[in-house]
Amino acid sequence: MGRGFFLTFEGLDGAGKTTQMKKLAAWLEAGGHAITVTRQPGGTAIGDRIRQLLLDSRTDNLAARTELGLMFSDRAQAIAEVISPSLQAGRVVLCDRYTDSTEAYQGGGRQLGSEVVLRMHEVMCGGLQPDLTILLLPDFDASLMRARSRNDRMKKNGADENRFERENEAFYRRVYNKYREIAAREPTRVVIMEGDARIAEIHQLIVKVVEERLGR
Amino acid sequence: MGRGFFLTFEGLDGAGKTTQMKKLAAWLEAGGHAITVTRQPGGTAIGDRIRQLLLDSRTDNLAARTELGLMFSDRAQAIAEVISPSLQAGRVVLCDRYTDSTEAYQGGGRQLGSEVVLRMHEVMCGGLQPDLTILLLPDFDASLMRARSRNDRMKKNGADENRFERENEAFYRRVYNKYREIAAREPTRVVIMEGDARIAEIHQLIVKVVEERLGR
Repeated sequence: MGRGFFLTFEGLDGAGKTTQMKKLAAWLEAGGHAITVTRQPGGTAIGDRIRQLLLDSRTDNLAARTELGLMFSDRAQAIAEVISPSLQAGRVVLCDRYTDSTEAYQGGGRQLGSEVVLRMHEVMCGGLQPDLTILLLPDFDASLMRARSRNDRMKKNGADENRFERENEAFYRRVYNKYREIAAREPTRVVIMEGDARIAEIHQLIVKVVEERLGR
Repeated sequence: MGRGFFLTFEGLDGAGKTTQMKKLAAWLEAGGHAITVTRQPGGTAIGDRIRQLLLDSRTDNLAARTELGLMFSDRAQAIAEVISPSLQAGRVVLCDRYTDSTEAYQGGGRQLGSEVVLRMHEVMCGGLQPDLTILLLPDFDASLMRARSRNDRMKKNGADENRFERENEAFYRRVYNKYREIAAREPTRVVIMEGDARIAEIHQLIVKVVEERLGR
């Protein structure tokens, strides 16, 4: 799939993905790399409509498999429109969430299991895997607190994107554990950033890993 | 999957599916059967939003796999909300299009192949198959003419549902051939109504088959 480099960021909401992506993007651009920054769900016009459908609180009776199918529909569109062309053009693609999120949230959180998600990944994404995945995973209590405080903030702003936030602690525990399971299963692709290091420290760790991998 | 009976109608646009479904629905109700009539895509609130996204002419750059994923997302929601509960309640479910349509249009027409569609069917529908499928398939030239004349009619009415109609003759040929292939592969489930019989004649043929199958 081209000569580019496909890099994904994973973790629970509030783990610092957006902040770290921005800092890494700036570092890559300063180093002369052509980059593409995208996110899932969303990132294409069709994907934004799918994202809206997913996040809409009115769709509370969304079946788990419908949600799974919509996640992968969005992903297939992002691959066709953004990711694949960028990689073919030799760019570094930074993507906020990818199939690991679906495995963690739908496979783990909603208990559909990993197998169903990975089979969908094969069919819908042709098995396209990131070259590197940065998994930001502070310890569970800190993660839960951050996700909740983010949720409260968004509610105050009147945002309607809190469908995923209204889940309970057991749900987050399953997501968290599934992320750890993925990292254990694919230790080369997935680099896990644990503990409560500061933003600047984590950025330095990420830069070091990315530098090594890009230099291959 | 319950004690009901799952009956689907398949064929190209303009083949008479809606007319025959209505006539059969009336016959079933007259015979004291509890029925549920639905269609795909659409048939649920979420499905209607997915259908709108699919049919919208603005989404011309919809990738083939995105379309496939959206079709099955709609179907998973219909199974969860409508089909499965109706079957469990012992009802006869009449569904306008199901997985055979996706195999014919996306697998055949858009050349994704049958395997991808059937793998999606396993994951997203748990393999739920109709007890009986009525495939209305007049000869190819008549089918093409009807689909086109339907398209012209809808354009005149300002309908924006003509995304699927703008395809060329080679596309319809592939859809048609895939339908024949499905019928040949599953001769027990799929009963094919060929030729140019009149509406009343076809209705009588359908009634005869349904009577036999329901009587089992």
